[in-house]
Amino acid sequence: MKAIKVNIKNVLGSISEADINNLDAVSVDAIEKLHKGSGLGNDFLGWLDLPSRTPTQEIDDIVTTANNLRANCEVVVAIGIGGSYLGAKAVIEALSDTFAAYRGSTPQVLFAGQNIGEDYLYELMDYLKGKKFGIVVISKSGTTTEPAIAFRLLKEQLEAQVGKAEAAKRIVAITDAKRGALRQLATEEGYKTFVIDDNVGGRFSVLSPVGLLPIAVAGYDIKALMQGALDMEKATATHSVDNIAEIYAKTRNALYRAGKKIEILVNYNPKLHFFAEWWKQLYGESEGKDHKGIFPASVDNSTDLHSMGQWIQDGERTIFETVISVEEQQHEVVIPSDEANLDGLNYIAGKRVDEVNKMAELGTRIAHVDGGVPNMRITIPALKEEYLGQLIYFFEKACGISGYILDVNPFNQPGVEDYKRNMFALLAKPGYEKETEAIKAKITE
Amino acid sequence: MKAIKVNIKNVLGSISEADINNLDAVSVDAIEKLHKGSGLGNDFLGWLDLPSRTPTQEIDDIVTTANNLRANCEVVVAIGIGGSYLGAKAVIEALSDTFAAYRGSTPQVLFAGQNIGEDYLYELMDYLKGKKFGIVVISKSGTTTEPAIAFRLLKEQLEAQVGKAEAAKRIVAITDAKRGALRQLATEEGYKTFVIDDNVGGRFSVLSPVGLLPIAVAGYDIKALMQGALDMEKATATHSVDNIAEIYAKTRNALYRAGKKIEILVNYNPKLHFFAEWWKQLYGESEGKDHKGIFPASVDNSTDLHSMGQWIQDGERTIFETVISVEEQQHEVVIPSDEANLDGLNYIAGKRVDEVNKMAELGTRIAHVDGGVPNMRITIPALKEEYLGQLIYFFEKACGISGYILDVNPFNQPGVEDYKRNMFALLAKPGYEKETEAIKAKITE
Repeated sequence: MKAIKVNIKNVLGSISEADINNLDAVSVDAIEKLHKGSGLGNDFLGWLDLPSRTPTQEIDDIVTTANNLRANCEVVVAIGIGGSYLGAKAVIEALSDTFAAYRGSTPQVLFAGQNIGEDYLYELMDYLKGKKFGIVVISKSGTTTEPAIAFRLLKEQLEAQVGKAEAAKRIVAITDAKRGALRQLATEEGYKTFVIDDNVGGRFSVLSPVGLLPIAVAGYDIKALMQGALDMEKATATHSVDNIAEIYAKTRNALYRAGKKIEILVNYNPKLHFFAEWWKQLYGESEGKDHKGIFPASVDNSTDLHSMGQWIQDGERTIFETVISVEEQQHEVVIPSDEANLDGLNYIAGKRVDEVNKMAELGTRIAHVDGGVPNMRITIPALKEEYLGQLIYFFEKACGISGYILDVNPFNQPGVEDYKRNMFALLAKPGYEKETEAIKAKITE
Repeated sequence: MKAIKVNIKNVLGSISEADINNLDAVSVDAIEKLHKGSGLGNDFLGWLDLPSRTPTQEIDDIVTTANNLRANCEVVVAIGIGGSYLGAKAVIEALSDTFAAYRGSTPQVLFAGQNIGEDYLYELMDYLKGKKFGIVVISKSGTTTEPAIAFRLLKEQLEAQVGKAEAAKRIVAITDAKRGALRQLATEEGYKTFVIDDNVGGRFSVLSPVGLLPIAVAGYDIKALMQGALDMEKATATHSVDNIAEIYAKTRNALYRAGKKIEILVNYNPKLHFFAEWWKQLYGESEGKDHKGIFPASVDNSTDLHSMGQWIQDGERTIFETVISVEEQQHEVVIPSDEANLDGLNYIAGKRVDEVNKMAELGTRIAHVDGGVPNMRITIPALKEEYLGQLIYFFEKACGISGYILDVNPFNQPGVEDYKRNMFALLAKPGYEKETEAIKAKITE
């Protein structure tokens, strides 16, 4: 099979092969912890075999449900936050025409519940007026504030526009198998539902119905996505010196130990912007704890060569880069010749735009390595479902390994609760009376 | 006047007032260097008095030109990279309806030349087929690779679609007053032009025609934008303990000296996403040099509380936050009551969505300060032109001061040349023969 590849040659000016190989033992141990379920957070390992264990019928059911929404809706709003937003958003953006929104292609997949923007919600609801729209609501509990607010508002609007019975046909809920507010509501209203497994955490859920349904609604081939993920599940299943998930996990930890505190995920294709956002959640939330962890950042090049490029080239030498390089583009554009040649571009006339882009990438890599920025490169054959499936599983597997090498629980997120607790206290949520009193005493302005 | 405000109270757990006040002398010195032109990079200080020195006739000319494009085009493509892209993009996104692209409102302002994405250009050119479109091309030299490629392609397409004479009426060039390829072409073809002053660098150019024309084409009030900037020019002109540009510059440098290496610009309104991108260029490119400088990052909350939130709360304690808080929203959405209340939201029924958002913000601030993340807050009365003008000038002025406090040249970007030189060598650009030979010897794969 064509497959993604990982090249770590260009970190070797900053750390040695021995620095990386020294992590072999902990890497073996990490893989064992993952597969035996003997490590921290072992109640959240359901993502490990999602590609191999998801029944064909479930995929078929998702496709049928998606096609039903596609047939009946101009717009489908996917409601979710964190992992219930970023995975689908990342894959859809990577596969979509950049100007799809302007073209009016349907169904449009829009997102809500990923923020508490009053103008965002107003403008969304205003846009949906008179539109045939449906909702995919994603929440394990059904009570997470952001998606719950969005769903309450949009459900009310949909029912007002088409009546309760028709609305129920256009709402799909992805939630806990048995418990929670959304499960109860879905049962009462007769919504089509899919299950979020107890042992699959949000940031590892893109290969479950959470990510797959919105991706299928957008018209993409989730079978190919899952096939790619399955190929990578197999390729990274056991310890080996060629296991690219281990290679990436070991190398980034070796760099971190050598004082490289920030990892910048770099793309040269703007369609990968949200893939980087997904990656930031995956790694930031898995590793940023116990006052440690690499700080994940991202840039879209060559755009950001004219922005963060200066810092990366000449700022503090505490960073490394991981470049995602897309080998083949979907389309071809050749730079035309121009008689006057005032802009001086005739030396590249006849070349494809991507050839220039690849030279920008290579030139940047050389400049950064020369400037003290170690550089890993992940090549993906093309922005197609199967390769994105490979890339997703690769990063997930590497993240589990990396978190254990760092010696944290990669599968919890205790820090996310802190703002929620304060917010509930400030909003005087029932059950938070004590916290409300305490926080009021704290506010001095 | 209503004005933006800066609150630094919540950094005082990490650094003391004395730490900040110790920078008074260098801050006074920095302001003097800016206003006397006695510091490094003093040939690029033209941005300092852009609001006060830009003639009314120039603004009127920009508005007239914009209205002409608006009347004659369904789509206007702004071609530029770095500062010739981010400023306009930031202001337009901050002021636009989130779903404007889906609504088909015209003229649509699209961007090109800010990347070398082959698919991006293909899809743009495909979208423009048969459309009435115009071009604003922004480049001091006219030979910067990214915008030059985009302009060569789109100019050819426009001329093919409407003929050379009509195309010339729909192309506006913003370029050097006398020199360069684009100036020469504009003269030959008879394009309408505006001037980029020699002493205004890219990342400080949003309040010049570079930013103002695309913003006006998008339909926004550039006079109000400039008025806000002028108010801030006056408010930050001289040293004072109340000068908010100095307060921000001193505080972030005091934090940096105390080991806070990463500044995260935080918003709670997704419309500010690209404002953060503009800010990252401004600060990253101005300060990231000589192996020093704060690493600028950004998050969109509450979205990213479910992503980077964990790292920020519990990762390495080497970060601080600067929150941009928008006081008034444009629209009102009230959370409805629900009889069943399965989602448990009735305790906030009747509240505006923004009240909840503000409590998420406050709750997060308290959690982060408790967790060891110093927090500055900039409040902006609303996302309106005049306040954005204030905010832009504020950040520019503070950046000049901050760069001098850091003891770098805030107005050059030597590191940006490195990748370009390599790229030209790899592409065998005439004049780079020696570099081509040298770089070929370096490539071992």
